[in-house]
Amino acid sequence: MKEQNISTIRQRQSRLLQLMEKEKLGTMLVSNIHNIRYLTGFTGSAGLLMMKKNASVFFTDSRYDLQAHQEIMEAEVVIAKGELLAAAAKRLTRSKTPLVGFEGQSVTYRGYQRIRELLAGRKLKALAGLVEMLRIVKEESEIETMRRAAHVASLAFEETLPFLKPGVSEKEIAAEIDYRMRRHGAEKTSFDTIIAFGERTALPHARPGERKLRANECILLDLGAILDGYASDMTRTVFLGTPQKKLARAYEAVLAALEEAEKVVKPGTACQEVDAAARKALKRYRLDQYFTHSTGHGVGLEIHEMPRIMSKQPQMLSERSAITIEPGVYLPGIGGVRIEDLLVVRKDGPEILTLPRKELLVL
Amino acid sequence: MKEQNISTIRQRQSRLLQLMEKEKLGTMLVSNIHNIRYLTGFTGSAGLLMMKKNASVFFTDSRYDLQAHQEIMEAEVVIAKGELLAAAAKRLTRSKTPLVGFEGQSVTYRGYQRIRELLAGRKLKALAGLVEMLRIVKEESEIETMRRAAHVASLAFEETLPFLKPGVSEKEIAAEIDYRMRRHGAEKTSFDTIIAFGERTALPHARPGERKLRANECILLDLGAILDGYASDMTRTVFLGTPQKKLARAYEAVLAALEEAEKVVKPGTACQEVDAAARKALKRYRLDQYFTHSTGHGVGLEIHEMPRIMSKQPQMLSERSAITIEPGVYLPGIGGVRIEDLLVVRKDGPEILTLPRKELLVL
Repeated sequence: MKEQNISTIRQRQSRLLQLMEKEKLGTMLVSNIHNIRYLTGFTGSAGLLMMKKNASVFFTDSRYDLQAHQEIMEAEVVIAKGELLAAAAKRLTRSKTPLVGFEGQSVTYRGYQRIRELLAGRKLKALAGLVEMLRIVKEESEIETMRRAAHVASLAFEETLPFLKPGVSEKEIAAEIDYRMRRHGAEKTSFDTIIAFGERTALPHARPGERKLRANECILLDLGAILDGYASDMTRTVFLGTPQKKLARAYEAVLAALEEAEKVVKPGTACQEVDAAARKALKRYRLDQYFTHSTGHGVGLEIHEMPRIMSKQPQMLSERSAITIEPGVYLPGIGGVRIEDLLVVRKDGPEILTLPRKELLVL
Repeated sequence: MKEQNISTIRQRQSRLLQLMEKEKLGTMLVSNIHNIRYLTGFTGSAGLLMMKKNASVFFTDSRYDLQAHQEIMEAEVVIAKGELLAAAAKRLTRSKTPLVGFEGQSVTYRGYQRIRELLAGRKLKALAGLVEMLRIVKEESEIETMRRAAHVASLAFEETLPFLKPGVSEKEIAAEIDYRMRRHGAEKTSFDTIIAFGERTALPHARPGERKLRANECILLDLGAILDGYASDMTRTVFLGTPQKKLARAYEAVLAALEEAEKVVKPGTACQEVDAAARKALKRYRLDQYFTHSTGHGVGLEIHEMPRIMSKQPQMLSERSAITIEPGVYLPGIGGVRIEDLLVVRKDGPEILTLPRKELLVL
């Protein structure tokens, strides 16, 4: 099944080849598996792509023989016996390419040593996110897939709300949500679903445990589905019974932060401005010191991609970028509130992919 | 919750410090998150451990403030603002340690560059699997956890068999299995569950898709649960209706390969001998050329650990190692059979943790 048509793949590769030319790279070794998928359509989990104008080669092992031949577009397929890098190096000896690039953020130090050994005599250049840069701006077909991924997560969230009764455990809720995402077509979850009850909602990265839900407690649900390779990400905080005053106020503040941050989202806005808008809203409530993480991140083939929505990030938002905005307030010993939307940057303001309502929900 | 008691953690650290002494390392930066958990009890997903005799320090970010203070044993906890490595480097300036080790298999090339920048003037040494080496031999408490993890997977497998009816999809079966593992207490799956029907069982790494089960087909299920951080791994191949002759014969061969490989498992057996025993059995059936991957791997905090059970691996098995044995035969266009046990190396032969029966099962 070719999920992207060949013209899309060609376009992506030609954009990368342009960037490579700017860097004076004859050849680039692509080892990040998401980048490989982006550039070739390959959905397996092991491979190495040697990008080279009109002569790209994809190396994988025998487990992926059939799959690689079915999926790979715009690259020759080589099934290597043994180390993929050795096969690539052997192939490179035929070529006179002066400078070889590799992905410094994906390759391990040990991997780098092997590249140095196997490509002895060649000039090497560590690259920082060349393909990742291309991936920031999504094609409409990618956005449509992400829309579906967000829909699946939204559905699973709604379907799980009736399970939130006193006595149920965090782990049980996580299992229900994940099961429902899968039943709606998710390949898997985007990350380990976060479910926290009561005072544990004050831990931004709580792992679901045996903690049981009690009456009048806060419930935080952070989840995402992967569909056709693309991730979604959403968070809602709901209440079983009347929320404590402090948490109700935190909810109001966080919702304001989310809405005000979303208002400034458009092409050309600096990431740090989006972050600042969220923090400014929290400051009005004097709760900004309880917002201890960044405001958001890009999403796509990976759950965390560029751009980063945080302070000191002057990078400007691009049209058709997919990002999260997820302000939170965490009151130690009391509880926390986080509300997170996945959205697409559009000319006239964001297209919000996350469906469930954001008004305070008392179950 | 301190899942390992302090004396276990102390023992692990002191064994590592001995290895470090041999390498003349005053300090070691541990960045692999599984190694950090092994050495400190920390179950979060971000941190950096600076190992140093009587002065180990664990660095993490504010998201893990509370959790780190609750979990970390035998190390000082520092909540860093910004880059963890920068915080560690700052701390190191106080020390006269001559040689600093880092994990060459975990740190990216970019991470290595940062280490070089931040620790300018220090001698660095890339280490290959120092902590991983310690992790090969399991403590009885680790084995008990893995026994439970294998039990959870076994239960989920048995409970899912009744769903294997004509018309069900691979994805649906994967969702059922994963849900049942979670309901039995799994934190998550050890890896993306592999479910393949019919001719797709010939792909050793098939990803569950929309393919629907038909009468008289082969079904391959490869699954594992993570419990308290420890993974399990198992594969069974079952048949809906009478198997094709070629597949029935492949089943007989693969079962013989598994049993004969398990027979040679004991402390002191070379990994390559276990591999050879499996291949020898397949050769009797003239099916050895269809066994296209390695025979097994270590399991523990990670689904793939040392040792590797494959040819040209003279490394000897240690008592209390946990490994898989998973021979397979893949007949292109027809189907494949794989049977996999998770077992512990014991003096008097392996303790097999995987429970479901291995005789050919016709549903």
